[in-house]
Amino acid sequence: MALFNKVAIIGVGLIGGSIGLGIKKRKLANQVIGISRHRKTINLAIAQGAIDRGFLNIAAISDPDLIILAMPVNSIIQIGAKISSQVHPDTLVMDTGSTKKLVVRTLENLLPNFVGAHPLAGSEKQGVINAQADLFCGSLCVLTPTRKTSGVALSRIKRLWVELGARVVCLNPTRHDKLISYVSHLPHILAFSLIQSVPRNSLYLASSSLKDTTRIAASDETLWKDILLTNSGNVLKALNRFLISLSRIKSAIIQKDARGLEKILRQASLKRQALRT
Amino acid sequence: MALFNKVAIIGVGLIGGSIGLGIKKRKLANQVIGISRHRKTINLAIAQGAIDRGFLNIAAISDPDLIILAMPVNSIIQIGAKISSQVHPDTLVMDTGSTKKLVVRTLENLLPNFVGAHPLAGSEKQGVINAQADLFCGSLCVLTPTRKTSGVALSRIKRLWVELGARVVCLNPTRHDKLISYVSHLPHILAFSLIQSVPRNSLYLASSSLKDTTRIAASDETLWKDILLTNSGNVLKALNRFLISLSRIKSAIIQKDARGLEKILRQASLKRQALRT
Repeated sequence: MALFNKVAIIGVGLIGGSIGLGIKKRKLANQVIGISRHRKTINLAIAQGAIDRGFLNIAAISDPDLIILAMPVNSIIQIGAKISSQVHPDTLVMDTGSTKKLVVRTLENLLPNFVGAHPLAGSEKQGVINAQADLFCGSLCVLTPTRKTSGVALSRIKRLWVELGARVVCLNPTRHDKLISYVSHLPHILAFSLIQSVPRNSLYLASSSLKDTTRIAASDETLWKDILLTNSGNVLKALNRFLISLSRIKSAIIQKDARGLEKILRQASLKRQALRT
Repeated sequence: MALFNKVAIIGVGLIGGSIGLGIKKRKLANQVIGISRHRKTINLAIAQGAIDRGFLNIAAISDPDLIILAMPVNSIIQIGAKISSQVHPDTLVMDTGSTKKLVVRTLENLLPNFVGAHPLAGSEKQGVINAQADLFCGSLCVLTPTRKTSGVALSRIKRLWVELGARVVCLNPTRHDKLISYVSHLPHILAFSLIQSVPRNSLYLASSSLKDTTRIAASDETLWKDILLTNSGNVLKALNRFLISLSRIKSAIIQKDARGLEKILRQASLKRQALRT
């Protein structure tokens, strides 16, 4: 059933493309428009069935009832501000950025029907070429309403994500940014640092240990530069907490404290085993 | 074709059990004997078809032509030394430990036909219950011969691993321990530290980023305590190299250096993309 007449997706990459495919597969909108800076991306997105039509310029969007900002965080803020003068007050606007405080604080003052969303279904894979209609099935999507968020807008956006297969959780933007810094931003920083520190002449010995721990280091640098800088306070706190854990293991190794080291590793192992898959 | 008459596997866990299953599936030995401290493990290993018979005591092994030490490193050294007086000089002895310098240096002086091996096919999954006949197919197995290693022993052990499906690489024990500290030991330390530093109240938001980066933190603590302490010099050097990489990212975040941060992340991303899967 169509929830929307016309949806405009600005940024047709992995996330935007997957939302387009998911909407079209489930017939959640009568029309899906894509906006990209690259003609090649638009052609690919049309060929894959992620959008019906595409444009290079945001001015070409006419009367959508939902605009989805699916770009790196800084671009979300910039483009969100840019379109605010031309967007009809009734139009829903949703972003999919990985940090929420700065995005929501900026855009909810400019766009009366703005809802912040963060689908936890990204991947190190980039681009519409890797988009999937079922990318969000079984995943979590965090919505970040505030006191300014319209209840109607929130419930329509919630419905969209549920139809796309996601479980929806609501958190305020500040809390989202804090919790996500541990489960997503910190692991990315460590993966980026780890792959950089491994000497090239040892990479031929890499097995699943290194591959699994660094898979997300193949992620897009612009996306992640924006994420880390727009959530720097939380990220640095999370990093310091990690460094304390690391220094406990390091000390035990330096002191050859077998019993102490085994205890730390056992606690960690049990904590990880409790986390599914 | 049987390469061996009687193989005795001491330690029937994930690795020992998988070797047993692999040998029996391919009929590489006429008989596979298992030794474990636990009757339950022996019964399970027999039920799974990983061994033909099992014993609680190493004294029960009579006239094997290959003994495989598949335990945590410290137990390999301890049990290897213990059996050295009763092992016939012609008997091949191989270990499967993840650090090689201390193991090889100790055991090659006690066992004339000793060959060090490190199959890079472990997993955070533990025990014979998770053993697989094809665990080593397509994986790498590092053999660590020295000037003292018998050429005949080495070529028979090499043949065994090739039959089990592994690609064999030879490295001296010192070089093995250095290179492996980066691609295996360092990732484990970071995974253990990371899962410990994540607040429990954020774990419900964990997606593939955290799960992939910490999967190996579910590993066995005794195994890993031994690995880290028997390779502490290399491990601490690798850790320091990682901390330098990490501090570059941390500084860029603190200084809000968008251009510098993006450059570091791009280098890391390209390096990881060049590593398959």
